[in-house]
Amino acid sequence: MALIVQKYGGSSVADAEKIKNVAKRIAAAQEKGHRVVAVVSAMGDTTDELIDLAHKLSERPDPREMDVLLSTGETVSSTLMAMALKALGHESISLSGAQAGIQTEPLHGKARILSVDPRRILQELNKGRIVIVAGFQGITKDMDITTLGRGGSDTTAVALAAALKCERCEIYTDVEGVYTADPRIVPEAKKLDEIDYEEMLEMATLGARVMHNRAVELGQIYNIPILVASSFKNAQGTLIHGGKAMEVLNKVRGIAHDENVAKITIIGVPDRPGIAASIFEPLSKANVSVDTIVQNASINKITDLTFTVSRTDLARAMEVVKPVADVIGAKGVVSDNKLAKVSIVGTGMQNAPGYAARMFRSLYEQGINIELITTSEIRITCIIDEARVKDAVRVLHKAFELDKG
Amino acid sequence: MALIVQKYGGSSVADAEKIKNVAKRIAAAQEKGHRVVAVVSAMGDTTDELIDLAHKLSERPDPREMDVLLSTGETVSSTLMAMALKALGHESISLSGAQAGIQTEPLHGKARILSVDPRRILQELNKGRIVIVAGFQGITKDMDITTLGRGGSDTTAVALAAALKCERCEIYTDVEGVYTADPRIVPEAKKLDEIDYEEMLEMATLGARVMHNRAVELGQIYNIPILVASSFKNAQGTLIHGGKAMEVLNKVRGIAHDENVAKITIIGVPDRPGIAASIFEPLSKANVSVDTIVQNASINKITDLTFTVSRTDLARAMEVVKPVADVIGAKGVVSDNKLAKVSIVGTGMQNAPGYAARMFRSLYEQGINIELITTSEIRITCIIDEARVKDAVRVLHKAFELDKG
Repeated sequence: MALIVQKYGGSSVADAEKIKNVAKRIAAAQEKGHRVVAVVSAMGDTTDELIDLAHKLSERPDPREMDVLLSTGETVSSTLMAMALKALGHESISLSGAQAGIQTEPLHGKARILSVDPRRILQELNKGRIVIVAGFQGITKDMDITTLGRGGSDTTAVALAAALKCERCEIYTDVEGVYTADPRIVPEAKKLDEIDYEEMLEMATLGARVMHNRAVELGQIYNIPILVASSFKNAQGTLIHGGKAMEVLNKVRGIAHDENVAKITIIGVPDRPGIAASIFEPLSKANVSVDTIVQNASINKITDLTFTVSRTDLARAMEVVKPVADVIGAKGVVSDNKLAKVSIVGTGMQNAPGYAARMFRSLYEQGINIELITTSEIRITCIIDEARVKDAVRVLHKAFELDKG
Repeated sequence: MALIVQKYGGSSVADAEKIKNVAKRIAAAQEKGHRVVAVVSAMGDTTDELIDLAHKLSERPDPREMDVLLSTGETVSSTLMAMALKALGHESISLSGAQAGIQTEPLHGKARILSVDPRRILQELNKGRIVIVAGFQGITKDMDITTLGRGGSDTTAVALAAALKCERCEIYTDVEGVYTADPRIVPEAKKLDEIDYEEMLEMATLGARVMHNRAVELGQIYNIPILVASSFKNAQGTLIHGGKAMEVLNKVRGIAHDENVAKITIIGVPDRPGIAASIFEPLSKANVSVDTIVQNASINKITDLTFTVSRTDLARAMEVVKPVADVIGAKGVVSDNKLAKVSIVGTGMQNAPGYAARMFRSLYEQGINIELITTSEIRITCIIDEARVKDAVRVLHKAFELDKG
């Protein structure tokens, strides 16, 4: 009798009918003899609707209030799921993040989980109940409600699977798994049966919106295999795991892209020690994640500093950067929010040269200009004009023969 | 510097604009130098929408899950109100019922408040904050969320006013106060400047939907004057208070009516000791409030037993009563849900005869048949055909000269 954690995303619980269907799937897992914990997201667009409502009341909604507000979305879906299971004759109880023992750091909007105390969940499982946990939410040691950031229900699920020492965590969503590229852009894209944590992490971070990257990280740290599959079909999904047994037939595993990219350039920065810290520390405090950073070779001790942030963080980043640029005596700050990232990802790449060259040549032959390049051991990312991103994904998918499986 | 508790109902916070307007009213109270605690209901029809959603998932939604579900409505409006106040430059914090120290009995759907520990509220007030409390909700000693039943936010407000030893509690709603009858039925109905707790309690219990009757009871027990006034206008409302100073010029204060009435008759009940208990104990356990009870004089030790319940409880009551009727050997059970109550209310009535006679004659002259009659010291209630209730209210309003103020 295995203990499994399942997670159902917002589109899988968007209305009463969908909740009933998911309840049947959860019930079926219990009927197979499993003990089941199911994590649910807020119904459909609830979170976005609540955010819109908050913004009607305040340009900068208070982060503590925002977290309490947004947490209600998952509370609603968790209670409805428990009701639906009871209606099917299965004992069930909904638990809030706090009741499920999820303690986080005291950071609103993007809190990280510090610890999971699964005692209450185990008590309820021992009563024969299916436990429904409201995803995305936690509580600080001072009993303030926090949220884990966009996609945080994935993190809730993997954290619970780790704390409960589950054999695997199942993420049910509106896609059938992880693909070699976004199938909406590349119709020949193939579903991967398995993928390595590192590769998935790069894919997730780079915009493959199948899973929250912090959830993949957690899975890797605690070595919890994660199955990503459709909540609507019974098709085989993609298993994200340690990858030791994977054969590396095609060294590029997938093409990721992300249109949520903006670039900030600080012009005429005096090139002296401490300048980088004086710019990036305040951004970090304002909770802006900085991605690629490029500093031009300096001429007469003056340089330009360019970095990328997510487009949604651009306004906030500019508010932080402009006064700092004044203080350090830079000439000015410019931004561009019409950019996108396209990346090739694969663990096999690190020891095999020639991938970068093939990528750059393919883009060049398509007439796509590369603005910035960044690399890690298992990926190469180019920042390009947003208008060309679909072309870029298609040409790279073909160039690396991903359509040939 | 007074400490005041205000309460704003669902129609007063139905959308972002209305929330902003209420925030201005709350801010104005603080600007006058008061320390302010504001209790809010769920936005508009949120509670009904959540109930509908639950009923799509389960014919009999689990009461614990239902309470967690419904409590989200008030959580949402409380956070939005706190955001709106911050946007106006007023420090504010939202508290859940649990955080506000409201402990209830462990009864889902209709829990009574057992105690209020106002320490957290006082801490927040001492920081100069306006405290917004989510109405309608509490928590049991086992940390389960409960709700206080329909209109429970009024009870939250009065209970907080009592615990905080406020001089008065202000209930802001979509009507301008308490009227001599429902102005939608009797256009000449007059707003009362003041009313006694007992009278208000009868009016509330009998269907004047201005205020929750348990809130009035609490006000009476702790002697907290309650102002009922419009949240949209700045008109003088109605003060509900101890009434010692009230002059009793017109002994009937108002006409109440209630269309949420159903009647159950158990036919051919053997008239022996213990029969009443065997019927009414299971109803009480099923949380059905029984109102009027009439037992006919028995013939050959056989009698008919008639009682009324709210129409919304009829189905549940019938489910309880039918098997009991079988067990005790009654001939059958019939019900009628097309009934209404009309009542005259006034503290002056108790020592002055003739009111009942005038009421019955007025109804008789209008051709309105009386099905059942019940009385208390300060009211007389007739149960009549639902189709005639508006006529009845109008004729009684006139008969007792309430239009003459």
